[in-house]
Amino acid sequence: MPDLLTFPAPSAAILEPHIPSPALSETSPSPSRPFVTLTFATSLDSSLSLAPGVRTRLSGPGSKAMTHYLRSRHAAILIGVSTLLADSPALNCRISGAASHPRPIVVDPHLRWTPNPTDKVLEVARLGNGLAPFVLTGVDAQSLPAANVALLEQHGGKYVHVPATPSGPDCRMRFDWRSVFDALLREGLSSVMVEGGGQIINSLLNPRFHDLVDSVIVTIAPTWLGQGGVVVSPDPLRDSAGIPVPAARLSDVSWHPFGEDVVLCGKLHT
Amino acid sequence: MPDLLTFPAPSAAILEPHIPSPALSETSPSPSRPFVTLTFATSLDSSLSLAPGVRTRLSGPGSKAMTHYLRSRHAAILIGVSTLLADSPALNCRISGAASHPRPIVVDPHLRWTPNPTDKVLEVARLGNGLAPFVLTGVDAQSLPAANVALLEQHGGKYVHVPATPSGPDCRMRFDWRSVFDALLREGLSSVMVEGGGQIINSLLNPRFHDLVDSVIVTIAPTWLGQGGVVVSPDPLRDSAGIPVPAARLSDVSWHPFGEDVVLCGKLHT
Repeated sequence: MPDLLTFPAPSAAILEPHIPSPALSETSPSPSRPFVTLTFATSLDSSLSLAPGVRTRLSGPGSKAMTHYLRSRHAAILIGVSTLLADSPALNCRISGAASHPRPIVVDPHLRWTPNPTDKVLEVARLGNGLAPFVLTGVDAQSLPAANVALLEQHGGKYVHVPATPSGPDCRMRFDWRSVFDALLREGLSSVMVEGGGQIINSLLNPRFHDLVDSVIVTIAPTWLGQGGVVVSPDPLRDSAGIPVPAARLSDVSWHPFGEDVVLCGKLHT
Repeated sequence: MPDLLTFPAPSAAILEPHIPSPALSETSPSPSRPFVTLTFATSLDSSLSLAPGVRTRLSGPGSKAMTHYLRSRHAAILIGVSTLLADSPALNCRISGAASHPRPIVVDPHLRWTPNPTDKVLEVARLGNGLAPFVLTGVDAQSLPAANVALLEQHGGKYVHVPATPSGPDCRMRFDWRSVFDALLREGLSSVMVEGGGQIINSLLNPRFHDLVDSVIVTIAPTWLGQGGVVVSPDPLRDSAGIPVPAARLSDVSWHPFGEDVVLCGKLHT
């Protein structure tokens, strides 16, 4: 049994206005989409890690406990397949007293992940310390490798088909965030914490999707990782006259020093 | 007469441990270098501006007053020539009750700036609302255009020769920060606030120069400017085994929410 983390009540109180209510499923019998919290930790130069695939400890132990507390308050946690492949995260909740684990959601349009029993996320599911992932993919059900389907299902996970459409400058098949959140709602998941990595976060910071995001919680560590890191910075934006304008702003902003780090809470609006 | 700014005493008290003492010149009769404060404002994605040459309002009115208060507490303020050419800043101190203006220092190794009476920094000097700049250049005194020398001197400014040496991957002639700070000390300037732009800040964040920096004060605005901005992010660093490591860390960190922004104070160490 891994060590459990504790998160102090005063800190939890600070986060309360920024996370889904525990009574969300009762108060909103038929919401049109899940409550979406976007949360991540960066350096001062907005890097998530020193280089692609390099797991980088950025924030202090308090921030780690905060992440697990936030997980305890969401029905699902979502990451991109690149992060799964780079880090093999457990994606469980290790906060003391948590009633349940969140459902890991892996965004994998092109089926890059081949599940393996040694993957951390399957290991914790086998041990009862977490849930197996739902893998969102654009691949048709009949084209899914049977061994992968069986392995996921043995652990309590599954594949969920989400329509992908060509988008971006390279016209690669991608999900629209609306389709992703629709799929989560169909699976009965009323809230989701979007954790990373860089591509996932940057695409959600695109103004097209700001109305889908209920809350943003960013931890900043007092470190510059230096150039070459995996950077959070959305695509540039221009106004109707072609003048560059900020890509995203937060409103209802509050800053909370937290050990050596700071936690920023706010809302996205265009 | 431009409007004067006020900076609240409680905020000034927060900054006090991070800036040179007013009695600095008395307490340190022969310091080996000036007190150096590195200060700037960025977006969450560490951008100083939306694009090179695009002046970008990032932080709120409180942060502007803070900048001018900090200027009132330094003998000199330093910028790179690119910032001078892009913004034509006044580089004066507009805080209410300030005893004197800081000396503007322009780092211009290759003499890219041709002074013109319409430049804001010369205009405020003529009007008695600021001091004319000292221009640090690698160009020999006998090679300086006489008209430039005369115009600067009429305003109370001058050229100061600093030896430049080839450095960086392009072997361009650059200053060593030690030579720059030595030159300031020879000019009787006991403290300097380094304000920007991106090249200046990134080069000072290089671990070779951390021992020269006494204090770092960064304002962060809750905005993402988006890719393509002028970014603060130092050159990447590797340890002796070739593993990427953070380029710069702050110690003695404190965070101070300030309107919608946050102000981070700390010290650089390697």
